[in-house]
Amino acid sequence: MAEEGIARRVVVVGTGLIGTSIALALRERGTEVLLTDRDAAALRMAVELGAGDALPEGATAEPADLAVLAVPPAAVAVTLLDAQKRGLATAYTDVASVKAVPLAQAAELGCDLTTFVAGHPLAGSERSGPAAARPDLFLGRPWALCPTPDAAPEAVATVTGLARACGAEPVVVEPGEHDRAVALVSHAPHVVSAAVAARLTGADDVALGLSGQGVRDVTRIAASDPRLWIGILSANSEPVADVLEAVATDLAVAASLLRDGSEEAAAHVADLLLRGNAGRSRIPGKHGGDQSAYAVVPVVIPDRPGELAMIFQAAGIAGVNIEDVTIEHSPGRPLGVLELSVEPEAAERLAAELRARGWSVPG
Amino acid sequence: MAEEGIARRVVVVGTGLIGTSIALALRERGTEVLLTDRDAAALRMAVELGAGDALPEGATAEPADLAVLAVPPAAVAVTLLDAQKRGLATAYTDVASVKAVPLAQAAELGCDLTTFVAGHPLAGSERSGPAAARPDLFLGRPWALCPTPDAAPEAVATVTGLARACGAEPVVVEPGEHDRAVALVSHAPHVVSAAVAARLTGADDVALGLSGQGVRDVTRIAASDPRLWIGILSANSEPVADVLEAVATDLAVAASLLRDGSEEAAAHVADLLLRGNAGRSRIPGKHGGDQSAYAVVPVVIPDRPGELAMIFQAAGIAGVNIEDVTIEHSPGRPLGVLELSVEPEAAERLAAELRARGWSVPG
Repeated sequence: MAEEGIARRVVVVGTGLIGTSIALALRERGTEVLLTDRDAAALRMAVELGAGDALPEGATAEPADLAVLAVPPAAVAVTLLDAQKRGLATAYTDVASVKAVPLAQAAELGCDLTTFVAGHPLAGSERSGPAAARPDLFLGRPWALCPTPDAAPEAVATVTGLARACGAEPVVVEPGEHDRAVALVSHAPHVVSAAVAARLTGADDVALGLSGQGVRDVTRIAASDPRLWIGILSANSEPVADVLEAVATDLAVAASLLRDGSEEAAAHVADLLLRGNAGRSRIPGKHGGDQSAYAVVPVVIPDRPGELAMIFQAAGIAGVNIEDVTIEHSPGRPLGVLELSVEPEAAERLAAELRARGWSVPG
Repeated sequence: MAEEGIARRVVVVGTGLIGTSIALALRERGTEVLLTDRDAAALRMAVELGAGDALPEGATAEPADLAVLAVPPAAVAVTLLDAQKRGLATAYTDVASVKAVPLAQAAELGCDLTTFVAGHPLAGSERSGPAAARPDLFLGRPWALCPTPDAAPEAVATVTGLARACGAEPVVVEPGEHDRAVALVSHAPHVVSAAVAARLTGADDVALGLSGQGVRDVTRIAASDPRLWIGILSANSEPVADVLEAVATDLAVAASLLRDGSEEAAAHVADLLLRGNAGRSRIPGKHGGDQSAYAVVPVVIPDRPGELAMIFQAAGIAGVNIEDVTIEHSPGRPLGVLELSVEPEAAERLAAELRARGWSVPG
């Protein structure tokens, strides 16, 4: 196995959210990054953000160690063919959210699959474009790698090194397995979120005024860019359709059971809710641990500068590490509720410290 | 119209999450609270949490100003009838998530509808029971009130005063309109979240390891108590079934369009995603404003006590108010990414202040 290492010179093709974020992460490690994008404005912004220099037109004097093809799924194969023809780099990877179709297209086009290792960093945002890019986007996230049997060990080592340089965890997975997995944990939930949000278009303001945190969470990713997502869904159509059909069936059955109204029918609906509990509990939590492992300490706070600093200072003095924070603001009121997630054994100590300093900590 | 005011003496029937939270909020205002629950353990815990005293067995000497029936939808009418027979209070309200069916049942049972004003605070948690109760649960949240034409102005004033005493915003709405609204913004999204989570039960660990924030958000409320929710769904079955059928149809059509694979089919899927964008943007944001009104300043932070305090202190010094905070921890790494939401005009000032103090603020 070739040694992993940080590439010295990388070309990033496509300066959207993912490409620019990779470039920024590499720049922080001192890697030389050359950027290219057919959208001149996106390229200019990425350069201005310090993601690297624009790739000169024409062939480069010397191939880079790695070319990252950060383009939509449908463009991966042709972009790879073009890059290899130009001799852009000695190893190639992509970042597309689907793997099987682009790999099949690359083989069909006659791309050199010894130097290509397909990849997919599991990170993103409902925002897109270089302006939303961050060098820390991949910190601690999984980064799927799908090397074919043809892939040279040196290429696998280089692409694995890229994932690690970005702070991600490389996960080797077979392309078809990858596509079925992301259909389940990303692509289909995306369409479902959109379908729930789509129902709100016809609602009146009174109904929307009764919205709580639940519908906000369920529909957050419905704010994503449709142009980006239609490409992803089209390239992973069968696995996504399988999941959507199963969800549609469960919902149609639940609707019909609710109309039935019998106790037996209600028991079947309750069974769906129980399966939901079971499925939800299988998602790994932050720090890879159990999500329910933290205790939540609520604090009522005035919504003004400096208040949070004093609370976190008190936590520091008590030697308590805050694992997570959420703020629930009160619409139209200068008050909020801060929820501090901490290790269970630290919860009482933190609550006591905050109460001693005059904050309202219910419980 | 009778004058609103804070009731001096309130009976809370049912010491679950909502009943106990109301009791705690009233206690903070100095109201005398008497508690009762057919589950002796839940009652004992609520008393221990300081939510009030246990209601003595048998009739009370003097009716309370208000009795809050914090029981499941199916129990509202019988509990109201029983409470009125005992002369528990001069005004009555409930907190059930559905309104039309319990009101019809109350009328059918011959309850006195002049002293009853149906209510529904739009607040909750995926946790349940008195242990999860908080006096600030209702701060700034809408509290739906559905007085019938029979309701006495004094009863309406008392129940409106309860909502305000808990820090909520009273919203008067017709029962049928309420039920259709919450089917759309709460009940149906709940079932959809469960249906997405249910798909994960059969997934392998590799697939679940590729889970990102999207599926976590979509399935958060799938962790809720099925026993509680089956009661809510059964009591609002027709409006919920209407929404579920519409979502199921959209998903089944999307699945079939994806399998079709033509460009025209893809355009129809993109249309669903666009409708999702439009619907999502209609949900009112925190502070009642536009959710996208804040700028997000990301900061890379070591995961150790005291670090957050210093960041918030720096924000306070810069005179910047933090509107929202999220922490993205990196599984297995002592690093996290803090996202600070601030007024757009303050973002640059905050970023500069943090950079000057040595933090990494990308952008």
